[in-house]
Amino acid sequence: MAQLKNNAITSRDEDFAQWYTDVCKKAELMNYSSVKGFINYLPYGYAIWEEIQNYLNKRFKAEGAENVYLPMVIPESMFAKEKEHVEGFAPECLVATYGGGKKLEDPLIIRPTSEILFSDLYKNILNSHRDLPKMFNQWCSVVRWEKTTRPFLRGSEFLWQEGHCLFETEEQARHNVETFLDIYDDCGRNVLAIPFVKGRKTEHEKFAGAVATYSIEALMHDGKALQSGTSHYLGTGFAKAYGIQYLGRNNKLEVPHQTSWGVSTRLIGAVIMVHGDDNGLVLPPYVAPTQVVIVPIRQKEPGVLEACEDLKNALLEQGIRVKLDKDDSKTPGWKFAEYEMKGIPLRIEVGPRDLANGQVTLVERLNGEKSLVTLDYIKENIPAVLKDIHVAMYNKAKEHLEHSIKDVENVEELNAAIADGGYARMAFCGEAECELKIKEITGGGTARCIYKDIEEGGKPCPVCGKPSTIIAYFAKAY
Amino acid sequence: MAQLKNNAITSRDEDFAQWYTDVCKKAELMNYSSVKGFINYLPYGYAIWEEIQNYLNKRFKAEGAENVYLPMVIPESMFAKEKEHVEGFAPECLVATYGGGKKLEDPLIIRPTSEILFSDLYKNILNSHRDLPKMFNQWCSVVRWEKTTRPFLRGSEFLWQEGHCLFETEEQARHNVETFLDIYDDCGRNVLAIPFVKGRKTEHEKFAGAVATYSIEALMHDGKALQSGTSHYLGTGFAKAYGIQYLGRNNKLEVPHQTSWGVSTRLIGAVIMVHGDDNGLVLPPYVAPTQVVIVPIRQKEPGVLEACEDLKNALLEQGIRVKLDKDDSKTPGWKFAEYEMKGIPLRIEVGPRDLANGQVTLVERLNGEKSLVTLDYIKENIPAVLKDIHVAMYNKAKEHLEHSIKDVENVEELNAAIADGGYARMAFCGEAECELKIKEITGGGTARCIYKDIEEGGKPCPVCGKPSTIIAYFAKAY
Repeated sequence: MAQLKNNAITSRDEDFAQWYTDVCKKAELMNYSSVKGFINYLPYGYAIWEEIQNYLNKRFKAEGAENVYLPMVIPESMFAKEKEHVEGFAPECLVATYGGGKKLEDPLIIRPTSEILFSDLYKNILNSHRDLPKMFNQWCSVVRWEKTTRPFLRGSEFLWQEGHCLFETEEQARHNVETFLDIYDDCGRNVLAIPFVKGRKTEHEKFAGAVATYSIEALMHDGKALQSGTSHYLGTGFAKAYGIQYLGRNNKLEVPHQTSWGVSTRLIGAVIMVHGDDNGLVLPPYVAPTQVVIVPIRQKEPGVLEACEDLKNALLEQGIRVKLDKDDSKTPGWKFAEYEMKGIPLRIEVGPRDLANGQVTLVERLNGEKSLVTLDYIKENIPAVLKDIHVAMYNKAKEHLEHSIKDVENVEELNAAIADGGYARMAFCGEAECELKIKEITGGGTARCIYKDIEEGGKPCPVCGKPSTIIAYFAKAY
Repeated sequence: MAQLKNNAITSRDEDFAQWYTDVCKKAELMNYSSVKGFINYLPYGYAIWEEIQNYLNKRFKAEGAENVYLPMVIPESMFAKEKEHVEGFAPECLVATYGGGKKLEDPLIIRPTSEILFSDLYKNILNSHRDLPKMFNQWCSVVRWEKTTRPFLRGSEFLWQEGHCLFETEEQARHNVETFLDIYDDCGRNVLAIPFVKGRKTEHEKFAGAVATYSIEALMHDGKALQSGTSHYLGTGFAKAYGIQYLGRNNKLEVPHQTSWGVSTRLIGAVIMVHGDDNGLVLPPYVAPTQVVIVPIRQKEPGVLEACEDLKNALLEQGIRVKLDKDDSKTPGWKFAEYEMKGIPLRIEVGPRDLANGQVTLVERLNGEKSLVTLDYIKENIPAVLKDIHVAMYNKAKEHLEHSIKDVENVEELNAAIADGGYARMAFCGEAECELKIKEITGGGTARCIYKDIEEGGKPCPVCGKPSTIIAYFAKAY
């Protein structure tokens, strides 16, 4: 039988990795499955994902993207056609070899990503330039056989969305790549209260099979970066490999330009590690499954529960996600600790003494601030208070991110900056070889994305001495 | 390259199976994937599923069910513990044997259903009677290795939801089984415009590992039944096999009572086959991705497109799912046929001549009825018109269902009734052996569910002569 709950967690400074695992488990976001390398997404964690889905689905649909669902398996023979892609993914594949008790002639790879299946679908439904653009998206899980796993960050199976689009021109495709990267950025700004650094990936870090990959990168409390979403311009490589063609405006067969973009349940990991503190999770209001919890004090005294119900209904009517915890087998103190662990943005304590004065106590999870306010104040101001909390959380995270960015000129400075935590910007040649050397020297620092291209006349690359072509953000990353 | 679209479909009377496939493809609900046995859920088909999800999610959450996500694979060693269950599912399993290039010590079965993983999860999180009830649900896909497949009805992978619950008492568990079966029934009545026959399954037809299975069964246009949702009382079998226990009210370890319930994308198949006609799909308004399509006539004439936009905005504001098709490369006639094929409940034709009189033409997909109405009428009455259509569709389907039910006394009558199409009710002993004989004699008729239990003194079973214990609904089924 499972252990009874114990709210003690490791402090962030003592052991950030252990703190993270503690929060994931104690806030009941997930637990480890008996299936090695896999996790169970528990209701509280899954509900955060549902809020992210709600926001993104609206934004995607407003851009004309349509949801579909494609098979979860890819025949090995079909997988092999795009060379770079298959080389990138083959080492991580889970492969089914038996179906209905018989050996399969063509083994089936559990999808690690679906560029191939979307290409195959598009080959069959695309006829004319009038059918373009096509913007399909699917919400599903993918499997990547990872050796080391970490809840939400790296696991054998994770939930994500993957958009796959076709366009007539490179310009339209590149515009799409940007548009959806911006939507992810907006999701950080408007929902997760997370600012991102964004930009193109280096040649070494780009997606297997892409012409160009763009990413948003967040900064965790411990100074490490977390790639939080990617958007790829795929060019015509997949289209050519899988035979996608259409009758163009000039009545000739043309090959479309392709893109793909995705975010995953990693975003939950970002929320935990950007905002959490030593008391547990701190959830930004717009992604919090419960935004306000009402805790009655001495709830048997007359009027207390009635006042709680009244407040709850007033907040529900405004569309606020509110929970009233009437469980009388738990003390208010136990509940305070529990909902702090769960990161609920606002707590309202309703007790007989305050009520006698028409007041209740409002407590903010973010800073622990308590205030005595009137019942009317609660009924009228909670949306504004939640908004203020959101802004405060975003600004705090933004300050942390911006203060972390250091401009450096050589590998020694880079090493020192990265060891300090956060991002360091440095010009270099952009070659994979130099990037790998930098990774070695800094004990794991990688180019997260490109800050700026250097048109010409770049200073010598600090590693190889050739002219620098880009200024990149470097950091250690999850 | 794919064929250009051609709207001709087989008529229902000529070849219902071919008609069904034609509609699925021509209405662009799905197409066949290059992965054998799998389909692609295209935007129009997937959007129907999203409407079903919206309705059910609200109902599930109102009952206290919480969404989670569990791994898509089950280790073979774990699968083997519940004997009946594994025997039922083993022949249909897809099995992964390689991960990350290495042979797996314990092969992984792609989930055909998740009773086992939910049991394993519950074992780890259930502590006390205070934790009960637990009602977890997940939306996911499952894989069953089927030899013959049919879009939405039977396929190697399909989308569904599976709820898995735990209760202290058998009574609570059985109540839950009923509650969620009723929710499915409501989904038919309120959303899909489909009436169901519902009841307990016979011993022979129940879920592998269940104490009792209940189902809703719809009647297709061709007189065949379609099992459209199931709800199972699992008793304590899984709980005992997987070691789920909790500290009960009397401070002793107790075993919980378990249930599971699910519906799948089969419901899309039901919608097609209950409502469709020889012009294609006929969608019930509350599940239609597009409820109203506006088609401009002679759209270049002044005022036409403006009037269309104005109507569209008026309908959008009322939350109606409306589409305005301004594509001037297609004729109005082409569009009429296209949106008939797609089953959009209402079409509004906006042309200059009618507009001059402040009127437009409203066409109902269900019966083809056309009426000239004022612009004000459209702006005010569409929700009521959609409701009327919904009621008319439900009543039409209900009449078909009720007229089909025949009470019969012996196997000859049963045979004739089943050959006629629809349901026949007959008393019999309820034993698997007699059920199998009936199936043989009737060329495939099966007991769909139980109409009534016979307390005592049942007439002799028409097959074996033993006293009848149940009156069951028999039909041929998909």
